[in-house]
Amino acid sequence: MKLNEQEVSPKQIFIEAEKKSRHKISEKVIQLFTPSIHTPSIEEKIDLQIATIVDKFLNTSNVNTNTNIELDSLLEKFADSKVPVEPSSCESYFKYLNDNVVAHSTHTSSPLFIGHMTSALPYFMQPLAKLMTAMNQNSVKIETAKALSFYERQALAMMHRQIYNFSDSFYTQHIQNNHSTLGNLTSGGTTANITALWCARNHSLGPKNEFLGIEKEGLAAALQFYGSKGAVIIGSELMHFSFDKAADLMGISTQGLIRIPVDCNNRVEIQAMRQAVTDCQKQDLHIIAIVGIAGTTDSGSVDPLEDIAEIAEKNNIHFHVDAAWGGPVIFSQKHRQKLAGIERADSVTIDGHKQLYLPMGIGMVFFCDPSLASSIEKQASYTIRKGSFDLGKRALEGSRPGMSLFLHAALNLIGIKGYEFLIDEGIRKTQYMATCISAKPEFELLTEEPDTNLLIYRYIPEPLRRVAVKKQLTETDNQLINQFNEKLQKIQRQIGRTFISRTTKTITSFGKKIPLVAMRAVIANPLTTEGDIDAVLNDQIQIASEISMSSFLSRDLNAITAATGDI
Amino acid sequence: MKLNEQEVSPKQIFIEAEKKSRHKISEKVIQLFTPSIHTPSIEEKIDLQIATIVDKFLNTSNVNTNTNIELDSLLEKFADSKVPVEPSSCESYFKYLNDNVVAHSTHTSSPLFIGHMTSALPYFMQPLAKLMTAMNQNSVKIETAKALSFYERQALAMMHRQIYNFSDSFYTQHIQNNHSTLGNLTSGGTTANITALWCARNHSLGPKNEFLGIEKEGLAAALQFYGSKGAVIIGSELMHFSFDKAADLMGISTQGLIRIPVDCNNRVEIQAMRQAVTDCQKQDLHIIAIVGIAGTTDSGSVDPLEDIAEIAEKNNIHFHVDAAWGGPVIFSQKHRQKLAGIERADSVTIDGHKQLYLPMGIGMVFFCDPSLASSIEKQASYTIRKGSFDLGKRALEGSRPGMSLFLHAALNLIGIKGYEFLIDEGIRKTQYMATCISAKPEFELLTEEPDTNLLIYRYIPEPLRRVAVKKQLTETDNQLINQFNEKLQKIQRQIGRTFISRTTKTITSFGKKIPLVAMRAVIANPLTTEGDIDAVLNDQIQIASEISMSSFLSRDLNAITAATGDI
Repeated sequence: MKLNEQEVSPKQIFIEAEKKSRHKISEKVIQLFTPSIHTPSIEEKIDLQIATIVDKFLNTSNVNTNTNIELDSLLEKFADSKVPVEPSSCESYFKYLNDNVVAHSTHTSSPLFIGHMTSALPYFMQPLAKLMTAMNQNSVKIETAKALSFYERQALAMMHRQIYNFSDSFYTQHIQNNHSTLGNLTSGGTTANITALWCARNHSLGPKNEFLGIEKEGLAAALQFYGSKGAVIIGSELMHFSFDKAADLMGISTQGLIRIPVDCNNRVEIQAMRQAVTDCQKQDLHIIAIVGIAGTTDSGSVDPLEDIAEIAEKNNIHFHVDAAWGGPVIFSQKHRQKLAGIERADSVTIDGHKQLYLPMGIGMVFFCDPSLASSIEKQASYTIRKGSFDLGKRALEGSRPGMSLFLHAALNLIGIKGYEFLIDEGIRKTQYMATCISAKPEFELLTEEPDTNLLIYRYIPEPLRRVAVKKQLTETDNQLINQFNEKLQKIQRQIGRTFISRTTKTITSFGKKIPLVAMRAVIANPLTTEGDIDAVLNDQIQIASEISMSSFLSRDLNAITAATGDI
Repeated sequence: MKLNEQEVSPKQIFIEAEKKSRHKISEKVIQLFTPSIHTPSIEEKIDLQIATIVDKFLNTSNVNTNTNIELDSLLEKFADSKVPVEPSSCESYFKYLNDNVVAHSTHTSSPLFIGHMTSALPYFMQPLAKLMTAMNQNSVKIETAKALSFYERQALAMMHRQIYNFSDSFYTQHIQNNHSTLGNLTSGGTTANITALWCARNHSLGPKNEFLGIEKEGLAAALQFYGSKGAVIIGSELMHFSFDKAADLMGISTQGLIRIPVDCNNRVEIQAMRQAVTDCQKQDLHIIAIVGIAGTTDSGSVDPLEDIAEIAEKNNIHFHVDAAWGGPVIFSQKHRQKLAGIERADSVTIDGHKQLYLPMGIGMVFFCDPSLASSIEKQASYTIRKGSFDLGKRALEGSRPGMSLFLHAALNLIGIKGYEFLIDEGIRKTQYMATCISAKPEFELLTEEPDTNLLIYRYIPEPLRRVAVKKQLTETDNQLINQFNEKLQKIQRQIGRTFISRTTKTITSFGKKIPLVAMRAVIANPLTTEGDIDAVLNDQIQIASEISMSSFLSRDLNAITAATGDI
């Protein structure tokens, strides 16, 4: 009817259109949350699309997946900061995701990617990730997790037992006792280390007589009450940089992190450590903790833990072991002796996403004394009530996902013997690689006795090999070798057939500290074979042969190096 | 041949058996990492088994999934701390997992589970979780993430823009600039809040003249240099308990966390906050930050952010907004005015796993000034080199999973209008619930004007209703009502048809602080209908009617309450 049509004002048309659009949006959004009734369902279509992306990703042979795009070009793809106004379709977004993100991601599970602590995962982790997300439990609250809180405590107790091996009655008493904390699941090794040192600080500067403790009165008051001029943490110079974060965050300053030199095998010098303790005591500096490393990030070396334990016990100081990398060596009958003394630690950090072969995002900290973590306990009326089973009250983090699913499943599906096999094989293959490197004139091994499955070495350009063998390299020679190795590693990474990472090892030569650029191999993928190790070394030899030594010596670093940036 | 058989010694038999067992273990473990060639593949079988578990879990109608097992019986299932020696089979482990864990987990995505901040997720999160795990990128290192680092920066910039809405040129300059930090992805709101306060502390007590800054010289030296007697953080008494953790961890003590009273709508009293600032200044206390809350954990209330911004600006103090809960309200045209002033904050926390409907484990902190986070920057030779693109150097956490996949996908697949719909609907349904509660004589509303989609109320037992309406309840009356509500909530949770959480609201009556036990509803599930809200309230009325008032008054708390524990 014409009359009616005329009655509709422009404003009304706009309102109607708005309403319709809102209705369309609400339908789309509701659909994203609602189980579908079509066949094949929308969920099945999404599953299939993602499964195809996953398959393609995992089956590429290069470590750079299927592209070797340069960083400058890559970052241009992510330059828009606007959130789309309307919801996009799943199909087109996942295509975008595949082409722009997955295609340019690192194939961390490739057997030829042996340069970082991120490795292949057992298949069952993928469906478990789906289950974890579908359940979406918040592990720190009984009311949003129920069974998962107890299941997480069990998994942590299982690991605790591997480290400390206390009696059955100890575990019966503490495993599900809400007043006891055998350990915390954390987002990573950094938060695990920070948590351990926080407990150590609060426990050692706790309430006494009229003093209410550092928690309630603060660091300055605590130092004053206990008659200390400052607070420090003592450990090897190879401590992970999470200790710098901890020292800064806790207010004791990064200068309060006392770094003791290491020997030629990258293990802390015990005599120097003992001396540092005495020096700090003489200067009235309160020692919060002494740190031992079981598997340095740089070279996988293990500090002499028994000796450190002795120093700590004798001086009544908290002993923390950072076993983020090396912790799982305790599963190996053959190699666990290397970690002897770890059972004397007051706290231990182990990363799940390293040698427990769990997905990224799982750190752990364990406490010898189940009451230690009460020194950091907090309450909150809406959730954390005294006596509750909630897991957030004696931890750094709050709400957390059900990551214990991965840990508990892996401990059962891999078992002690399975982990033993993984550890033994990793170390065996590392020793194979060390032998190969020693046998090849192109390389120089920088780890004399690899403790675990990490090793560092470097490439020596041909003109300098004879001098290198005689140990007569000058500082200038070493600088040139450094530049060569940096360039070699960058080109290797950019080409992406194989991958080795890069670090710096400091040596003392003629009484002077000289930094050496080192190649760093991490062999923690059960699918990496001896043939793969050969391939990685041959790839480096081939790339090195293509770097023109003359142009190199004239420092004419070519375009490819510049383009990859200093990453 | 007999002779040969005789030659085999018992030791050799043992060695052979050992070898065979080792071989079996290695085969089993290698298989877990290797793509299968059988049809149907082992992976397909595992996928199917887990998919069945997921379907059953998501399709249960009760919030306690399919059991209402008591906690004491549940925890007995997780009392063994031994790690199995041999690898278990996937099939039997997943059956165990289903029967003992999934079956007793909380159905957080049920439309009738409206008591916690953990909610339903859009379906696409499940396959994305699988993709994230299959890719297993370590987001903080370019070498183990490549595209994902830039993709994460983009997602953070998109959220930053929603808060601050700076110019196109600002975002072009900073979005992929490795010297700029628009924000950090964190494991949760707690680490986000701690990161923000850490930056605020280090920035406000930074290097000056001969002083190297708090990072290098520590808190005690910083206070001395700046002439302060202590350091404090000022915010509402309803600050989340992550602020207690931060204050303790940073060495300023929980007493240094100054909690300002709130008004009847749970918003901070501005006059008292202003006074606190003046008082601290008079006492030479250094104010690290003033905190405003956009969505308190207890009641969803929003502090007057404009007023707080003004105080902070006038006194040149860092202004942090904890918008872990309420942040996404910025997507709503209708309600974003409630957050006015958030764009004046120096730092803002938003949780992804709350009202952005992402899976658990995603917090975010945003910085107004992209150079602020340089106050906490750290280096490490093996990974974090100066000028690198690595994301771990200006952050609390180290290695992290590719959680940005969820955030980036959701921003695209839900879009601004989709989020607006989710926010508007949540608030609309909360107002519906408030109306229902006001209309029912059984309940008393404790939030006068709910700012967001949280509301608190309580049940008033029949004999006390008339006195309650007249506002003449005595302290004893309130204690009885408290006990009744605690019992009601515990029984409701145990039966598991519906769920509401519990908190404590402090009121002042006759000049005395009285704690009231409150029911806390959180309405953040798009599938929750008005009918579901009615069902939850009717469930409470029915349960209340079954609690015998006479036995209750005699404090004969029955078995069910005792069995559920004080959780």
